[in-house]
Amino acid sequence: MGRWEPDARGRLAKAALELYGERGYEQTTVAEIAKRAGLTERTFFRHYADKREVLFAGSGELEDLFVRAVAGAPESAAPLDALALGLYAAAEMFADRRDFARRRHAVITGNAELMERELIKLASLSAALAGTLRHRGVPEPTASLAAEAGVAVFKVAFDRWIAAGEERPMAELTRESLAELKAVVSGG
Amino acid sequence: MGRWEPDARGRLAKAALELYGERGYEQTTVAEIAKRAGLTERTFFRHYADKREVLFAGSGELEDLFVRAVAGAPESAAPLDALALGLYAAAEMFADRRDFARRRHAVITGNAELMERELIKLASLSAALAGTLRHRGVPEPTASLAAEAGVAVFKVAFDRWIAAGEERPMAELTRESLAELKAVVSGG
Repeated sequence: MGRWEPDARGRLAKAALELYGERGYEQTTVAEIAKRAGLTERTFFRHYADKREVLFAGSGELEDLFVRAVAGAPESAAPLDALALGLYAAAEMFADRRDFARRRHAVITGNAELMERELIKLASLSAALAGTLRHRGVPEPTASLAAEAGVAVFKVAFDRWIAAGEERPMAELTRESLAELKAVVSGG
Repeated sequence: MGRWEPDARGRLAKAALELYGERGYEQTTVAEIAKRAGLTERTFFRHYADKREVLFAGSGELEDLFVRAVAGAPESAAPLDALALGLYAAAEMFADRRDFARRRHAVITGNAELMERELIKLASLSAALAGTLRHRGVPEPTASLAAEAGVAVFKVAFDRWIAAGEERPMAELTRESLAELKAVVSGG
């Protein structure tokens, strides 16, 4: 690391999302992002591999956090209860990032390649969660079904959380979505 | 349509899958597929837009069938029961295609671009099912959660069905996976 830049990473992410929204993702260059953040391109590349990485750095963080929480659940926890701990850990990570998440979502849904990458990240999360459950002794196909159900709750709660006008915290929407899943699956 | 070719479409699909397996998807040309099937390139293009379409033609058919079965469920059916009708309709469509499905799966998992397209098709299926449930009067987020749960059952049952050595029909694996989902969600 070179010269210390207070929250360079956060400033770069904020500048990037602003520019993606204003000019479009394809049209924005790393040079422009660095300039908007008042930093150099060199500093940009110390924090992100490329302009796409600004949008997906959080996905790796999310997977780590989610999986760690599931892995650390009490041994006696049922699969869905272990997943719930992961969901709440994820909700906490998102807590103060709603504005960023909304801007990011708008950029991603406007670009097929980014949308594909988003789907791959979710599939990777589901596979990692299934693996963690198997490691906890949950047999297949239960592990995969539980993991898919957990990711479904995450997706639905996340979509509600970033909806225009929504002000309730992600944790509350997660709790509601989990309850809805239980109701619809047991009612069917 | 020109000259009648008995089951040209099926012969082309079979030839394509053989070649994708032998030479790799990227290395196979439409000319080679037509030749292997004993047909012309012109006939190929009457049936498929390109060599990728051979792998994904069934995905559109699956979505139509699945959605139609859910839409046609009795008005009184709970969301998951309506989805179950779609799942069994899908299982019936697959019944005699296990060999094709296994070869197709091997090709797709070996190519990142095809894998992305597969994920998009599943996301599209989930969105279509959620829309169908809303149309039946199911409110959000229940509609999206139920649709995601239904697609999860489909994915898990399908993966089991194409696993090496598996001989049970897709309908049976679907029934088991549905029961497993109910058990894991209500047990959590």
